[in-house]
Amino acid sequence: MSLRARRLKKVLAEKGLTGMAVSSTSNMLYLAGIPIQSFERFAALLVPTDSEPALVLPELEAEKAREQSDIKDVRSYSDESGPSEVIARALTDLKITHGRLGVERTLPFDFCSKILKAAPNLKMEDATGAVMELRLKKEPQELSFMKKAGQIVEKGIQAGVDSIEVGATELQIGFEIEKEIRMLGGEKVPFNAVLAGGNAALPHGESSESKVRKGDCVLMDVSATYHGYYADLSRTVFVGEISSTQRRVYETVLAAQTAAISSIRPGVVAGSLDRKARAVISKAGFGDRFIHRTGHGLGLDVHEDPSITSACPLVLQPGMTFTVEPGIYLPGKLGVRIEDDLLVTDEGGTTLGRCDKEILVL
Amino acid sequence: MSLRARRLKKVLAEKGLTGMAVSSTSNMLYLAGIPIQSFERFAALLVPTDSEPALVLPELEAEKAREQSDIKDVRSYSDESGPSEVIARALTDLKITHGRLGVERTLPFDFCSKILKAAPNLKMEDATGAVMELRLKKEPQELSFMKKAGQIVEKGIQAGVDSIEVGATELQIGFEIEKEIRMLGGEKVPFNAVLAGGNAALPHGESSESKVRKGDCVLMDVSATYHGYYADLSRTVFVGEISSTQRRVYETVLAAQTAAISSIRPGVVAGSLDRKARAVISKAGFGDRFIHRTGHGLGLDVHEDPSITSACPLVLQPGMTFTVEPGIYLPGKLGVRIEDDLLVTDEGGTTLGRCDKEILVL
Repeated sequence: MSLRARRLKKVLAEKGLTGMAVSSTSNMLYLAGIPIQSFERFAALLVPTDSEPALVLPELEAEKAREQSDIKDVRSYSDESGPSEVIARALTDLKITHGRLGVERTLPFDFCSKILKAAPNLKMEDATGAVMELRLKKEPQELSFMKKAGQIVEKGIQAGVDSIEVGATELQIGFEIEKEIRMLGGEKVPFNAVLAGGNAALPHGESSESKVRKGDCVLMDVSATYHGYYADLSRTVFVGEISSTQRRVYETVLAAQTAAISSIRPGVVAGSLDRKARAVISKAGFGDRFIHRTGHGLGLDVHEDPSITSACPLVLQPGMTFTVEPGIYLPGKLGVRIEDDLLVTDEGGTTLGRCDKEILVL
Repeated sequence: MSLRARRLKKVLAEKGLTGMAVSSTSNMLYLAGIPIQSFERFAALLVPTDSEPALVLPELEAEKAREQSDIKDVRSYSDESGPSEVIARALTDLKITHGRLGVERTLPFDFCSKILKAAPNLKMEDATGAVMELRLKKEPQELSFMKKAGQIVEKGIQAGVDSIEVGATELQIGFEIEKEIRMLGGEKVPFNAVLAGGNAALPHGESSESKVRKGDCVLMDVSATYHGYYADLSRTVFVGEISSTQRRVYETVLAAQTAAISSIRPGVVAGSLDRKARAVISKAGFGDRFIHRTGHGLGLDVHEDPSITSACPLVLQPGMTFTVEPGIYLPGKLGVRIEDDLLVTDEGGTTLGRCDKEILVL
């Protein structure tokens, strides 16, 4: 059993839980060392608070788990028989049949039902935090993967910038970004949004066949993994010319980001970063156009703890990693977001990934 | 409210459900017409069996929903306030507070908990099938998107074929495919596998830096979306020369595919397609080297109902769409798969996408 699994059991004991069923891809990778897509077929790491953990997996994942995982107790089921009996037997053997069982907030309804059918006296509760609090502080190996991911995405966005011209489509620019990322060894590219002009006013918009026009902003928000660890960066540039409104919006967003980043140090409450960024944007009169949180944790998931809203009570500690990404969105007109990936250090904060910040008019 | 939502309500009424909470990306796109990534923040289409549906969305998705969706009742919440009050109010207004609520098998535990906290008397049950049975038969607009997706992937694979030469890497050929697809307006490319020689013997292999050698087969299995709808095609070609074994394997796979496709017509049981393809391959002596199902449904998901195994009881009806993709895999040596996208018509079957079938030696 890994050090990480041992630390999890300690947290579960403190919470008075009987155990935890861990089923997300990122947490199974973190705790059991194996990349399992748990989606269609039932797959879970069952961690009893008082004894050794076990993996319940579909047959076609079991060999990989026996080779690569440090979990000794691997139990598999065939597509023919289904997982029900194996789940029931495992819960009985591990004495996870009563009390409170921690689960992740993402656990699919179908997996919940199968566990509760096997052990109807269990009471499930969200214990996502039990694993996430372990994952908050990254180890040196994790940080080196994240830095490399940051470099890859920086270069990808630069390739996008180099391909921007009047008449290019959002998708074409996005293709140049993705091509560069793949060439550099990026694995997953969960999003790669290139949004021009009014399209950039939708924070979660998707690239389309829309063409870049003179006077547009072009917002690029790109994420990719290296060894499973995410970078997530955004940059906004302008095409041909820049209006006074565009300039004012950009400078406000940059000032907000700078205010948040410069306040990062151990002991600071994460929510204060959001309040600092929001204060700058509100003072400039765009308070109601900053319609999302200031950032989110980053690691084996592209969005993980902490969620940096003004209410976030987390006290920053060295090793924590998250994005800082204020934005201003004027519907139908423009959107500007500037996003870096940050690491809390003993002295303050340092970037794991960042793009150039100067106003760029192509 | 869309016709689709009305049809869903009819199915829910037949099942005696109070309503359904729909939360998966593909089902929200199908029923509400909006592309929402629902995984971190609560997002759901609440469909009461007896009245109008409502969308509960995070603020940053709400503008898109109000613009693009035909659901009139859009309720949003901010990251600050969280969704709890909005969910509770919506469930009360829609009178979804008691009885059995249908949910999807993928519904995250956190979404379940939030709904049950707002309406503790609800009893949840898996009603994934209620939406999937509507999605089985495609409408004309959906079919036109799928045909266009098919054309895009056909041309992508052709660009791959044009770039195959001794010494080219699998990844290089894959880039040419993806570039062509993006240029033609393809959106997501969930997979793009180029597998040469022995690599092609792994049905779920991934492209690598392996170089194409004289005498290799090259298997290309490529998927992409157009307006959210998937095509999924495979073609296998040969480089420099073709051995008698390669020729025999290719001709067997093609005969198996032809046997399955030519039997498609309304009233036929889907499982019989698998049995027909398998019979041809078994008769040629390769029965144990056809190690996967004959096909899968295709639409807003790249794998949806039906799953075409020999046991599949679904009776084909006009408007159903699926892949037909038998294959033969000789470990360490070669893999041949030929995959078309099919539509059941009144008269029989027609392809939504297909590549050339003649043996091609480059």
